[in-house]
Amino acid sequence: MTGEDGTGDADGDRPRRGPAANAELALLLEVAGTPKPGNVDRRRDLANLRFEQFLAGAVGARPGLERAAAGDPVGEAFETAVAGMSEQSGGNTQFGCLLLLVPLVRAAAAGDLTAEGVREVCAATTVDDAAGFYRAFEHVDVAVADPPEGLDALDVRRGADAVPALRERGATLLDVLSASAAPVDESGTPRDANAHEWVAGFPRTFRAAEAIRDDEGPVTDRAARAFLDLLAETEDTLVRTRHGAEVAREVRDRAAEVASLDEAEEWADDLVGRGINPGTTADLTAAALFVALERGVTV
Amino acid sequence: MTGEDGTGDADGDRPRRGPAANAELALLLEVAGTPKPGNVDRRRDLANLRFEQFLAGAVGARPGLERAAAGDPVGEAFETAVAGMSEQSGGNTQFGCLLLLVPLVRAAAAGDLTAEGVREVCAATTVDDAAGFYRAFEHVDVAVADPPEGLDALDVRRGADAVPALRERGATLLDVLSASAAPVDESGTPRDANAHEWVAGFPRTFRAAEAIRDDEGPVTDRAARAFLDLLAETEDTLVRTRHGAEVAREVRDRAAEVASLDEAEEWADDLVGRGINPGTTADLTAAALFVALERGVTV
Repeated sequence: MTGEDGTGDADGDRPRRGPAANAELALLLEVAGTPKPGNVDRRRDLANLRFEQFLAGAVGARPGLERAAAGDPVGEAFETAVAGMSEQSGGNTQFGCLLLLVPLVRAAAAGDLTAEGVREVCAATTVDDAAGFYRAFEHVDVAVADPPEGLDALDVRRGADAVPALRERGATLLDVLSASAAPVDESGTPRDANAHEWVAGFPRTFRAAEAIRDDEGPVTDRAARAFLDLLAETEDTLVRTRHGAEVAREVRDRAAEVASLDEAEEWADDLVGRGINPGTTADLTAAALFVALERGVTV
Repeated sequence: MTGEDGTGDADGDRPRRGPAANAELALLLEVAGTPKPGNVDRRRDLANLRFEQFLAGAVGARPGLERAAAGDPVGEAFETAVAGMSEQSGGNTQFGCLLLLVPLVRAAAAGDLTAEGVREVCAATTVDDAAGFYRAFEHVDVAVADPPEGLDALDVRRGADAVPALRERGATLLDVLSASAAPVDESGTPRDANAHEWVAGFPRTFRAAEAIRDDEGPVTDRAARAFLDLLAETEDTLVRTRHGAEVAREVRDRAAEVASLDEAEEWADDLVGRGINPGTTADLTAAALFVALERGVTV
């Protein structure tokens, strides 16, 4: 059970949630954070993706998160988490969240949940970890941007078929994600915001976690505010992949204008109605919730 | 990991949720079932009990549920589950659910999730299991009825202090719950509906599970309909404990009149406003969801 089942804390004989349990709880608190414009929340389902499927996705991801906490290889832990997550009928619920959570859980379990600690976890990934990441795409359909020019052989949509090309190039998981983290244009926005976290030591995750810790009230309200702040900060890269740069900028600018959760409610209905889903920002919110829970935020 | 982490099923290399994971998912689907008049659901929190605390309670319960699946003593598994559940600031979220789920998980893990199978699990409980049950009350405040006449020494509110009296009488966990299952008056309603399930082979749980399986649409909607049907069937014993027989009958009769989830929405606000919480019926709903998941209902 890798430390999840009730080792006492300083307060006595109460069990304490370990990193894998906190990561699962972060997934649940993320989907319960309301409103999160364009995403599934307590008040909204998407056309083909329901709240209950996120619950099942979080529960299913737990064994992979336990593997990350136990020190198993990052790529295997991630693939196990994604395989478990996909055991529901909605398709991809939390692939991006898990890509962020797995190294964070590993760093937390190793006792160093800091930018430096998680950077070390990412830097230590191998070609085998990259292969696990590619295999994970075979469990579920994930919306991704086209690969950078000249890297068609490493297109993640090839799944396990890309593994020989990975091995030939000796590309580690960090190498693969570095290619996805590069800016797409002169704005400096990365191709994929989750990959950028991997490369840069999770700066947005840790900042948002501090904001959640400094905030007050129910954790799901704090999650919603953190989501809006993250969305106002940088274009959501899933929105850009699906709807183009102009829509991504419009969403970012609108998020910057929203002054309260009440004001965000109406906008949430609008985005859901238009099918615009800032999913990468939800991924970052889940990662930030995990760090906040590990740093003592109480539910 | 007691079979949770990815043993393939007949369909190939996909992991399948084991009984502990399904039990945790049942807890989550229960709280997400909406509307469940008088209870926390996707649209309502109670005055001092929030949706997010049920999420944390479910995540925290998992190690105890894993112990039940692994064949650890029922009383220890239950106490572990309750201790983990109580690792959130809302107090008692799912004590009653867990009392039903632990023997059901054990029966499922043993390959016999039937009335007979769970009856055997309950019949095999020992005095040590009863002691675990009493210790569980020390982790969290639970609303319970006064003990039957002459059984003050076994009042569960005494927690571990009652254990010497348990041992003196040689009372097993099934013995303890049998006393709570006895009818309170000529209506035949048991003192505690959860205890009655233990004694009688979980008849209401299995019936409601079949109804959920035969129903259609999102599982959380099916859960809400199952809740209303269970509430219309028999007085909620938590409501009777807290508000008396008359209010319990009123709630049961009103539930019988509600013809749709839409109609239940308004009533849900009314019950929450009056502080009337049919929590035992929610416990039964969670147990029924577990059985339905084990019998193939897909989320």
